[in-house]
Amino acid sequence: MGLMTGQQFKDSLNDGRVIYYKGERIDNVATHPAFVNCVNTMALDFEMGHDPKYKDLAVVFDEELGEEISRYFAIPKNGEDLLKMQELIIKSTELGDGYIPFSHDIGADVINAIIITANIMGDQDYIDRINNYNKYLKKTDKAVVAAVTDVKGDRMLRPGDPGQAHPDYYVRIVEKNEQGIIVRGAKAHISGAAYANEFFVIPCRAMSESDADYAVAFAIQANAKGIKQIVRPFVQGRSANDFPNERPHRMITDSLIIFDDVFVPWERVFLCGEWKYAATMVYNFALLHRRTGCAYRIPLSEQFLGMATAIAEYNGVENAPHVKDKITEVVIYLETLKALCNAACFDYKMIAGIAVPNPVITNIAKYHFAHQYHEIVRIVQDLAGGLLVTRPSYLDYCVPELQEEIIKYCGGKAGIPTETRLRMFDLIRRMTHSELETIALHGEGSQESQRMTIYAEAKKTMRYCKNIVDVMAGIKKQD
Amino acid sequence: MGLMTGQQFKDSLNDGRVIYYKGERIDNVATHPAFVNCVNTMALDFEMGHDPKYKDLAVVFDEELGEEISRYFAIPKNGEDLLKMQELIIKSTELGDGYIPFSHDIGADVINAIIITANIMGDQDYIDRINNYNKYLKKTDKAVVAAVTDVKGDRMLRPGDPGQAHPDYYVRIVEKNEQGIIVRGAKAHISGAAYANEFFVIPCRAMSESDADYAVAFAIQANAKGIKQIVRPFVQGRSANDFPNERPHRMITDSLIIFDDVFVPWERVFLCGEWKYAATMVYNFALLHRRTGCAYRIPLSEQFLGMATAIAEYNGVENAPHVKDKITEVVIYLETLKALCNAACFDYKMIAGIAVPNPVITNIAKYHFAHQYHEIVRIVQDLAGGLLVTRPSYLDYCVPELQEEIIKYCGGKAGIPTETRLRMFDLIRRMTHSELETIALHGEGSQESQRMTIYAEAKKTMRYCKNIVDVMAGIKKQD
Amino acid sequence: MGLMTGQQFKDSLNDGRVIYYKGERIDNVATHPAFVNCVNTMALDFEMGHDPKYKDLAVVFDEELGEEISRYFAIPKNGEDLLKMQELIIKSTELGDGYIPFSHDIGADVINAIIITANIMGDQDYIDRINNYNKYLKKTDKAVVAAVTDVKGDRMLRPGDPGQAHPDYYVRIVEKNEQGIIVRGAKAHISGAAYANEFFVIPCRAMSESDADYAVAFAIQANAKGIKQIVRPFVQGRSANDFPNERPHRMITDSLIIFDDVFVPWERVFLCGEWKYAATMVYNFALLHRRTGCAYRIPLSEQFLGMATAIAEYNGVENAPHVKDKITEVVIYLETLKALCNAACFDYKMIAGIAVPNPVITNIAKYHFAHQYHEIVRIVQDLAGGLLVTRPSYLDYCVPELQEEIIKYCGGKAGIPTETRLRMFDLIRRMTHSELETIALHGEGSQESQRMTIYAEAKKTMRYCKNIVDVMAGIKKQD
Amino acid sequence: MGLMTGQQFKDSLNDGRVIYYKGERIDNVATHPAFVNCVNTMALDFEMGHDPKYKDLAVVFDEELGEEISRYFAIPKNGEDLLKMQELIIKSTELGDGYIPFSHDIGADVINAIIITANIMGDQDYIDRINNYNKYLKKTDKAVVAAVTDVKGDRMLRPGDPGQAHPDYYVRIVEKNEQGIIVRGAKAHISGAAYANEFFVIPCRAMSESDADYAVAFAIQANAKGIKQIVRPFVQGRSANDFPNERPHRMITDSLIIFDDVFVPWERVFLCGEWKYAATMVYNFALLHRRTGCAYRIPLSEQFLGMATAIAEYNGVENAPHVKDKITEVVIYLETLKALCNAACFDYKMIAGIAVPNPVITNIAKYHFAHQYHEIVRIVQDLAGGLLVTRPSYLDYCVPELQEEIIKYCGGKAGIPTETRLRMFDLIRRMTHSELETIALHGEGSQESQRMTIYAEAKKTMRYCKNIVDVMAGIKKQD
Repeated sequence: MGLMTGQQFKDSLNDGRVIYYKGERIDNVATHPAFVNCVNTMALDFEMGHDPKYKDLAVVFDEELGEEISRYFAIPKNGEDLLKMQELIIKSTELGDGYIPFSHDIGADVINAIIITANIMGDQDYIDRINNYNKYLKKTDKAVVAAVTDVKGDRMLRPGDPGQAHPDYYVRIVEKNEQGIIVRGAKAHISGAAYANEFFVIPCRAMSESDADYAVAFAIQANAKGIKQIVRPFVQGRSANDFPNERPHRMITDSLIIFDDVFVPWERVFLCGEWKYAATMVYNFALLHRRTGCAYRIPLSEQFLGMATAIAEYNGVENAPHVKDKITEVVIYLETLKALCNAACFDYKMIAGIAVPNPVITNIAKYHFAHQYHEIVRIVQDLAGGLLVTRPSYLDYCVPELQEEIIKYCGGKAGIPTETRLRMFDLIRRMTHSELETIALHGEGSQESQRMTIYAEAKKTMRYCKNIVDVMAGIKKQD
Repeated sequence: MGLMTGQQFKDSLNDGRVIYYKGERIDNVATHPAFVNCVNTMALDFEMGHDPKYKDLAVVFDEELGEEISRYFAIPKNGEDLLKMQELIIKSTELGDGYIPFSHDIGADVINAIIITANIMGDQDYIDRINNYNKYLKKTDKAVVAAVTDVKGDRMLRPGDPGQAHPDYYVRIVEKNEQGIIVRGAKAHISGAAYANEFFVIPCRAMSESDADYAVAFAIQANAKGIKQIVRPFVQGRSANDFPNERPHRMITDSLIIFDDVFVPWERVFLCGEWKYAATMVYNFALLHRRTGCAYRIPLSEQFLGMATAIAEYNGVENAPHVKDKITEVVIYLETLKALCNAACFDYKMIAGIAVPNPVITNIAKYHFAHQYHEIVRIVQDLAGGLLVTRPSYLDYCVPELQEEIIKYCGGKAGIPTETRLRMFDLIRRMTHSELETIALHGEGSQESQRMTIYAEAKKTMRYCKNIVDVMAGIKKQD
Repeated sequence: MGLMTGQQFKDSLNDGRVIYYKGERIDNVATHPAFVNCVNTMALDFEMGHDPKYKDLAVVFDEELGEEISRYFAIPKNGEDLLKMQELIIKSTELGDGYIPFSHDIGADVINAIIITANIMGDQDYIDRINNYNKYLKKTDKAVVAAVTDVKGDRMLRPGDPGQAHPDYYVRIVEKNEQGIIVRGAKAHISGAAYANEFFVIPCRAMSESDADYAVAFAIQANAKGIKQIVRPFVQGRSANDFPNERPHRMITDSLIIFDDVFVPWERVFLCGEWKYAATMVYNFALLHRRTGCAYRIPLSEQFLGMATAIAEYNGVENAPHVKDKITEVVIYLETLKALCNAACFDYKMIAGIAVPNPVITNIAKYHFAHQYHEIVRIVQDLAGGLLVTRPSYLDYCVPELQEEIIKYCGGKAGIPTETRLRMFDLIRRMTHSELETIALHGEGSQESQRMTIYAEAKKTMRYCKNIVDVMAGIKKQD
Repeated sequence: MGLMTGQQFKDSLNDGRVIYYKGERIDNVATHPAFVNCVNTMALDFEMGHDPKYKDLAVVFDEELGEEISRYFAIPKNGEDLLKMQELIIKSTELGDGYIPFSHDIGADVINAIIITANIMGDQDYIDRINNYNKYLKKTDKAVVAAVTDVKGDRMLRPGDPGQAHPDYYVRIVEKNEQGIIVRGAKAHISGAAYANEFFVIPCRAMSESDADYAVAFAIQANAKGIKQIVRPFVQGRSANDFPNERPHRMITDSLIIFDDVFVPWERVFLCGEWKYAATMVYNFALLHRRTGCAYRIPLSEQFLGMATAIAEYNGVENAPHVKDKITEVVIYLETLKALCNAACFDYKMIAGIAVPNPVITNIAKYHFAHQYHEIVRIVQDLAGGLLVTRPSYLDYCVPELQEEIIKYCGGKAGIPTETRLRMFDLIRRMTHSELETIALHGEGSQESQRMTIYAEAKKTMRYCKNIVDVMAGIKKQD
């Protein structure tokens, strides 16, 4: 036990789990060609723990256990801890060329959300269970992801609304017994689930009394009986049209996880019918998760600034005023994101004993990232020019009678090899792919949910500011 | 001779032309699986001429020739003619599910631009040549496309600038002799070229005296000696992940056309060193071409409004205020585009005897379309939700043990079959593809070029308006 | 009788009406210094009817009456009529330096809305009444304005909601008798009312059955017993700080009109409890009124382009790329507005026998104007520079020992007299005044009301477009 | 000596200075009715130093002098110092109802910029002079403002360009002698100058060798011989139309300062011909000044959120979805500004021994504030409704026969007194005044200057990011 190596992690995945991908049942995700890049990306997090260059960042010493654990599994106590965890997310995402490993990061967001909820409930049983489970994770270093979003059915209807086509659009408790509970339903968009060891399952919304059966949270092994994953096709990756690239290929997939009457023992159950606390759990998870989402978009945003800078230069237009103007927009985008992320840590808040990033700023950061994303894509595509789409492919480049002409005619600025320009087109094409656009919009919750949170969180500020102007207008005296 | 049928057109393509696609030399584009959908799309225009439903729109009677010709080859004389041609573009694009056939439409833009240029030059030789060539097109009904954009090299340098890595970044005259001229260079992004009969080649920018060899315009057969096309990979189409669809698949490709010392006889040469008129030709082509570009984006924009409306309903969120708000944005986008297109025709301008759509309004229409496009994509992806990317693919749907569960869990609003929702995701995924984004940005010229044209065209209005305020401010008396 | 001259109009205003302005009871608006500029502006419309330069535009021959009438009082029968009326609005607003005279223009919008409503109701009595009243207007040429917006109280509550602080927040019928009705309530923001001869009063919203007493429309003389006007302070005008300006000063004011149990004879009552038709009347008025609103903003937008152009030149920055960029934005703003206005006329619609501009396009035009207005203000203030606010005033300029230094130090580009630059600052300061911003936002209804109308009007288009994509997605066969 | 009281400060102003306002020569600004509110606002800073509530924030103990000094005159050594100074700016601006006192704040920005420049030059003479002058300020507590922006003439021409209409558009040295220098020229937009004790004068741009005479920086008393101020008319204040308000009226004015051959002794000269360092001085001043500008806009932005919240409630629309949406925008505006300001301090930079806020983030903060300002104004005016402009004035309210009706008809939500609503309109009208818009745009430099700085400062980040994507694209190996 203790910190896993990358290889140990990979070996742990051959556990009989049920995975489908493009209509095929996958035997071992760790070795299947469609998943090997994903598994390697997730393994980065484990490798950092053994790499002298990153160990101090990735690993902390746990006094209670007397051993080293992943930093993610340590409870943040102040803004410094939050900044350090943010630094770790950023660094591992950099190593993943923009993909966060997902091994412990989002899992940690759930752990903290569950602890906060248990503390607020003041239920010692739940407090013990989550602490014990966290201890188990610290010791085993398991990769654990978060299964939150239900498939929902009609999104305007509550989980238990009889108007829903069936009662299983949200994961629910279908039976309770001495040993534990049996659950049914499905969770969508679960990143990294296909090659994680375990999942957290928590509600994705506030519940009312009639939704009590849906107010359920638990942890479960990926290979538990009754669990089946259907993995989304990964489209935006490298293809035969692209120049070959020795840089490791990074990938991530998302799963639809189906829970077909799955048994969960009590010690892994963290919410079971206490519908009032579904909101507490999902609120705190969403907050922490949006922080994580913003952090790992910093390296991604750096890539966009890099692509804008590079292709402007390779096309020879870097000094045109409108080009500088567009690059400036990307700078503003990136630096605003970074500043918001940092400010959210500096201006942290304690909830039930755990340090969380500032809720308003975190939601603004996430909204900023998602809402402006398409504009940034537009700028990079704009700077690239139409050749981004219409250029000859690498397959053409390999035809001897074409290569010379491609080199001649697809050149940009003198001194920049044509291959350099074409490779940058390959990268921009991949990075401005519409799949990533959709993920930018919907990852960590829709823009609408962020706006609603911003409004709700700002109520107190609104009152404070209203008081100021009431005084200024002579409506009331200063307090 | 006379109007070709779709089949005659297809047969005409097996002419020995040199086409490469994904590294493969294509024998006959009309029958090659990678191109058959493209050729069918281009053939739509010919089929309309023989279809009683569309004939009145697609075909006009030419008094001089005493026969029916494509409406595209008739010179527009007034706003009514422009509106009628716009209607034809829109209708054929509707038949092409958003793809304009490219058989005559853009070719017609070049014809008119060349006639205007010849008339302005007042050179009877050129006037005769283009009229004769137009007569030839009327009679033969050839599919003719426009090859305009040069590969450019360093985009900040003029064609003849010695700083360019070589002198062939813009198509140029390398020799003149008694029979004609010999040209060298390459044209990029040439839509439909792989399955057109002929191309127009014209300059893509204003020229200075030292660029005289680059001031060249001509027409040439696709299979002329020395011409080689490299066709861009078409990526955003249907795949095995999508539900099968009986609706004909529409496609279009773009070519990089390389002119390796190609001979052009004098009767097909329309500009040859008169560098002052390169600007006239490209200006008028760009104007007409942008009109065409706007017109065929009307059906495309209707598709976006359709997708927004449909997926909001299928997800059951059509009555949420923020959803109505987003759909309203798409309505504004579409209706503004239509209004601008119509207003440009109503407020047309005569240039050298030819009716052209209003230049300022046309450029604003194109800019509107391109500049807001990513925002519209964002809205549709936003309304769709993350399942757009993470849903199981059709290949999963075909697995017997998965199908029932996919139907159960991927349902949206009660009463809407899950397959309906999944099919709409397939379509949205295809239609919001990043390839189309890049084409929206760069087709018919960059946004920067439209802004520059708007500014230049508005000079007179600016003076008029300045005079108004000078009078109001008491700076000058009313004229 | 017949067309009034400007002087006859002015003389007609000394009729005992009750007007308050800044706490003062005004005796005769036509001669009071605070109103003389307003009255002169309204008189422009009458003067045009007698000016050979404008008569053909301002006046038409009425076959039935056998005399000349204001074009505004003729019912529009087609798009040409709409364009002609638009041209008249634009021209009279130009003469008013951006202020529409308000003498007949908005009144005509009400006449047409009432005729449409009467026709749709099919009530011959109402049809006769409005036709007779219109005939009276044609013959007397009275200045008649529209009193539409109620003061509303709590804007989330219906007129008859018992939660309202009192029942008079919307104008209502308090009594019906043999001679007519008695009404109570108040109408807000009534432009030009202080110096109009008569007012139309119509509902400002859809009504439900419990609001029947509020479903009332009528015409009334400005000096009728029980009517009292409180006129808003006009702030953004010229001041002693500005250079003196021989150009006539144009102004307009808005009134709060209080109806304190005012009697209206039956022949002037056009709606009286038919609550279902309140929506018809206000819908059609809003549509026509927004058209009028857009039309008179064309000259205003031209002034903004003029100010941007002028001050850029006077500051010597007209060739800086970012300045050209900003001016281009103003061009796009203006030309889009014009194109939308024209397209709305071309694409007109017949409602109950009357030609109305296209509803979707008209609402988009109004929304475009209002929504972008602050951005245009920003651009002009940006181009002007901080001296716009911090420059010495004309009063300083008049101090002998300062004048020379002001001329020396407040100069911009060589060759432009300092006074020219300072006068342009005066004008920009006046024209970018926050009062005008608010009026741009709220005149002719809020942006939200335009968005709601756009959405509602586009329902049919949405269905049409949804059908297209359902076919493309293979969900349904083509019809 | 030592810290001045408010009264001591006021008394210090009666020093014979030459001030013109609206054409009138002002005898004593401290007592003149047009200035008394300005002087009181500036005095706030002095009062804080003696108020136990604020003293710890406003005052620090200077070890060297052994006495208390204004915190502004202490050199910031780290992020904490920057945050503390920011807190002081915010607090004093709150006391000034949105107006920063200007007594020491901007002056401190110059002191630090001059020290940085002197340190970078490594010129001991200059280092001593500024340290001595700073010591003088610490001891005397003088109010000192910054005179930076020259009047410029043709803004596209350099100071010394012969194309300028005269050589005095930028302040320049006309003579040097043993005692000091003689300067001529004018500085524009100098906030608070009319009632400051002294001014700093520094260049407003980078200089070239031919501009050496314009590379001049110094400090001077407001009553020095040859100095004349023309003060801009303050327009947006309270008027007779507004409800009377016991809340002290806050104001600030800006001056055009004319230097008519003014003598400056050497010990107060901080730059004199070293043209290469003009850029250093203005760059560092602009950076610090923009920080100050952002900080004092935090209270202003809080007022906007307050007005949006208050008027939505008073109108009874606070629960309409589009209203919540608009308020959310104001929250995002405010909180982003605060987060950027804080992040700029946390991520501070040491320049020549002085802590300065992060340059990129500071410029983004300022740009954010200014660029979105008009949109926030629009939202508040939108939420207010048209009554903002058209409501009866307080003068009407005072008319006995009108008051009851105004109360009746201008009410909004039940339970909110009409006077409350009208007072909020008064405030919003004043606060959304166009003067403040222009100041928001141009204060602390134009938006274009911020964009240029952001681009320039981000060069290193751009290189870093380009390297990342070059590695990802396989163009280069990881370093």
